[in-house]
Amino acid sequence: MKKFDNLKLCLKNSKDHKTIIEVGNVKIGSGFTMIAGPCSVESEEQTYQTALPLKKAGIDILRGGVFKARTSPYDFQGLGVEGLKILKRVGEELDIPVVTEVLDTRDVEITSAHVDILQIGSRNMQNFALLKEVGLQDKPVLLKRGMSATLEEWLNCAEYILERGNPNVILCERGIRTFDTYTRNTIDMAVVPSIKILTHLPVFIDPSHGTGSPDLIEPMSLSAVGAGADGLMIEVHYKPEEALSDRDQAIDPLVYTGIINKVRKMSDFIKTELV
Amino acid sequence: MKKFDNLKLCLKNSKDHKTIIEVGNVKIGSGFTMIAGPCSVESEEQTYQTALPLKKAGIDILRGGVFKARTSPYDFQGLGVEGLKILKRVGEELDIPVVTEVLDTRDVEITSAHVDILQIGSRNMQNFALLKEVGLQDKPVLLKRGMSATLEEWLNCAEYILERGNPNVILCERGIRTFDTYTRNTIDMAVVPSIKILTHLPVFIDPSHGTGSPDLIEPMSLSAVGAGADGLMIEVHYKPEEALSDRDQAIDPLVYTGIINKVRKMSDFIKTELV
Amino acid sequence: MKKFDNLKLCLKNSKDHKTIIEVGNVKIGSGFTMIAGPCSVESEEQTYQTALPLKKAGIDILRGGVFKARTSPYDFQGLGVEGLKILKRVGEELDIPVVTEVLDTRDVEITSAHVDILQIGSRNMQNFALLKEVGLQDKPVLLKRGMSATLEEWLNCAEYILERGNPNVILCERGIRTFDTYTRNTIDMAVVPSIKILTHLPVFIDPSHGTGSPDLIEPMSLSAVGAGADGLMIEVHYKPEEALSDRDQAIDPLVYTGIINKVRKMSDFIKTELV
Amino acid sequence: MKKFDNLKLCLKNSKDHKTIIEVGNVKIGSGFTMIAGPCSVESEEQTYQTALPLKKAGIDILRGGVFKARTSPYDFQGLGVEGLKILKRVGEELDIPVVTEVLDTRDVEITSAHVDILQIGSRNMQNFALLKEVGLQDKPVLLKRGMSATLEEWLNCAEYILERGNPNVILCERGIRTFDTYTRNTIDMAVVPSIKILTHLPVFIDPSHGTGSPDLIEPMSLSAVGAGADGLMIEVHYKPEEALSDRDQAIDPLVYTGIINKVRKMSDFIKTELV
Repeated sequence: MKKFDNLKLCLKNSKDHKTIIEVGNVKIGSGFTMIAGPCSVESEEQTYQTALPLKKAGIDILRGGVFKARTSPYDFQGLGVEGLKILKRVGEELDIPVVTEVLDTRDVEITSAHVDILQIGSRNMQNFALLKEVGLQDKPVLLKRGMSATLEEWLNCAEYILERGNPNVILCERGIRTFDTYTRNTIDMAVVPSIKILTHLPVFIDPSHGTGSPDLIEPMSLSAVGAGADGLMIEVHYKPEEALSDRDQAIDPLVYTGIINKVRKMSDFIKTELV
Repeated sequence: MKKFDNLKLCLKNSKDHKTIIEVGNVKIGSGFTMIAGPCSVESEEQTYQTALPLKKAGIDILRGGVFKARTSPYDFQGLGVEGLKILKRVGEELDIPVVTEVLDTRDVEITSAHVDILQIGSRNMQNFALLKEVGLQDKPVLLKRGMSATLEEWLNCAEYILERGNPNVILCERGIRTFDTYTRNTIDMAVVPSIKILTHLPVFIDPSHGTGSPDLIEPMSLSAVGAGADGLMIEVHYKPEEALSDRDQAIDPLVYTGIINKVRKMSDFIKTELV
Repeated sequence: MKKFDNLKLCLKNSKDHKTIIEVGNVKIGSGFTMIAGPCSVESEEQTYQTALPLKKAGIDILRGGVFKARTSPYDFQGLGVEGLKILKRVGEELDIPVVTEVLDTRDVEITSAHVDILQIGSRNMQNFALLKEVGLQDKPVLLKRGMSATLEEWLNCAEYILERGNPNVILCERGIRTFDTYTRNTIDMAVVPSIKILTHLPVFIDPSHGTGSPDLIEPMSLSAVGAGADGLMIEVHYKPEEALSDRDQAIDPLVYTGIINKVRKMSDFIKTELV
Repeated sequence: MKKFDNLKLCLKNSKDHKTIIEVGNVKIGSGFTMIAGPCSVESEEQTYQTALPLKKAGIDILRGGVFKARTSPYDFQGLGVEGLKILKRVGEELDIPVVTEVLDTRDVEITSAHVDILQIGSRNMQNFALLKEVGLQDKPVLLKRGMSATLEEWLNCAEYILERGNPNVILCERGIRTFDTYTRNTIDMAVVPSIKILTHLPVFIDPSHGTGSPDLIEPMSLSAVGAGADGLMIEVHYKPEEALSDRDQAIDPLVYTGIINKVRKMSDFIKTELV
């Protein structure tokens, strides 16, 4: 396997070197972390009604988009700052940390003030101005892989954040773009063990964007656990058929509960029986 | 997910429709099947010395290439018919069924007479003359996915074999070609559950070609089990550093033994605890 | 640019080293060569009615498929040997050399006896048994690039043919497979000058398969001339809407006549004015 | 070919609908426009010494990067605002309009005050906050295609700019990312005629990033002219071997002069003889 000589900060300096990121009571990188929630924050009602059963199912972190990166300018662009406030209130009410994506350097500060984790989306993975800005914050950053980013390019983006002084980066594979369109994207599962071998950073899988298909979320979640991932990010909506974005790939809280239970069992089995 | 209307034979006709392929005592598609062995049959000594510890480790089927599809005409092209005889003798001596790749329509008959399973390699996935020929044999066919074949194209190739009268097709994902070259190929793990949902055929993962990296074979094997695969095909050589082909991705029998033990445990756990 | 050290025969040994392939009166590699004709030979009537206006338009070589490589086993598979005879008769009657694809090692000899150039299609680019077989014939070979073949892999396939003793290989780019499906394939135009710099072999562009779109054939043909290609292969059918294969990308002889006239003018201009 | 129904502003409303963008005396979209200059503005000396022979060679617009999007945080990041001033002074002194890339919404206003055209780079093609910001400026925008952007996604990004009120968008293909790494990227030449058929916007080719190889710039430039492009953007450095970025793909002014002369001749020939 290739060496990445110009990565000074994200590579392991010893076999056991591992970054554990504490967010509330959650320790990302130690244990298995479940992030779930709606693609977009659409209203307080929708966010709360989705988050409540997820809390009961045992998720660790709530996701919800407020600044939306949409292919077309005519698509729903998110609730913006109003959405930030909703997400913060719901998170506080249910005592769950929250994560949201930020798109614009000018929004980083206010977003950082409202959420527990800042997300950089695929389309902005190499938005270097934005990486530098989140690198100056004291909130962890969940960095999604770009659609056609090599592992080396992705790790260099983590390096941008680390280099600015923010040590808490979570890598999240959400499927790459390939010639096959049967699934929405192609999950490159081998990045999970590759990242665990090379770096000290936690790595997550997003099977919702990774497959675009509700039927594939459970098997790909279990596959991610087998590969050694540190967590999963899954889109859930209390009424998937009414979602304002990514309607086709969302699952409902009941289906999610079945998945999280299997994921927890398998994760425990691997930690206790396969070491 | 898309419908594939012109696939008359390989799609499921009911939720429980499943093809079980019996090869000796092995029932492919029921239980978890481990295929292992050298990339190439190089000599009787090398084949036997590799196969013996694999037999002890509990593999189900022995692999070994005798007609080699090599990028350059100046690379080792395999032992041909002499290799077929070696493979057959070693298989009989150790009482393990054997599988080898066939490249030329003119070699199908003699190969079929020596081995238990015929393999169609990635580069010949759409060699339709060859597909028709193996479709006329009474031996099962392990059909590898082409490097840039869509799921639809791959299933159509299975359909070519089924249409000629051979019902026993095993699909094997060995990684697709993408923009990223960190791993040799990119394992498209989501084809495993997709195939299980759509078709009645068993599906395997080949993490050796899929990653090209010995370090990634164990985690990707466990990941395949989590995804619901029916088996694994892994390259093992008793002296990897002396292999005449694919030297960099082969593991030795000792490492393999560690992997097969974990795979068996995890497969059993899923079958008993996660249903 | 990379070196390809294991290519002993297809690389240039001097700046002016260039293979000129004589087929009847046509000198491929010197002048600009136009190959055209139907995707499939469907009948003598259809082949003749398509070929006649093409002959008048000034094409150099007639194409027509008789052994068809089709994605589905239920699609039209070609007329086989009967088609070979039709193609040969029409070629003789109109005094045009003919080219057809061969799929099976067992068909190489009879095909070689009926046509002037043997074509290896994209799906068989790495069918090494077939490459070795056409390498033993005394007819030139038009070798299409595989859908996801690197330049290096493609040149190694030419090397397989040269190594067997057949020096007359024509390389034909027909579009590679990428993430974008707006066009059927993506013409990698830069292979034209790359091949001219590296090797002594002629290189063609197939804008029909390369784009899958009649509207794009003229501009991509002129683009190929600008890039330095030695020729074009274009699918023409006298009644495109009735074609049994590749109906959507065929143009009629009238449209083709407009294209060939512009191509000839531009090719002449470049040879006389831009040296 | 597909329809793009949600593109309200960038599609043609009639066969002759065409946007002509006036920048100084240059009319982009009418005539053939040559943009050239260094990858990065490194100093006033380097910028002037590169621009002077380019002016003499007859270029229309000078390029030069001041905010650099670099893979690694440890690479040269550009001179920033100081670079903007240098570029502006050199442009004024030589009476050539200038173009530079902008990376951050916070830099749009000052950049717009210094240059004639704003460039959005590949890595920021879907930086929607940035697109909205340049959509509010009164300067034309040169929008590069993302590395793995479909034509539809790219046109949607143009739509973002048009929707904000800026009608002057120039599309620039700079090569997409594919499996083959022989060239740095793969120029998808067929987007040129596709864009001309679908939209009213001018389209350019960047053969420097598109190939990464000085030897391929001339043939790919002529190929782009044949395909119907409206212009070319080429990286030139007065001492390529000393360039601080993209050293391997830059050509010197002398080589460039040979290319521009052939391009002008061929463009004139096509306009006068091939209509």
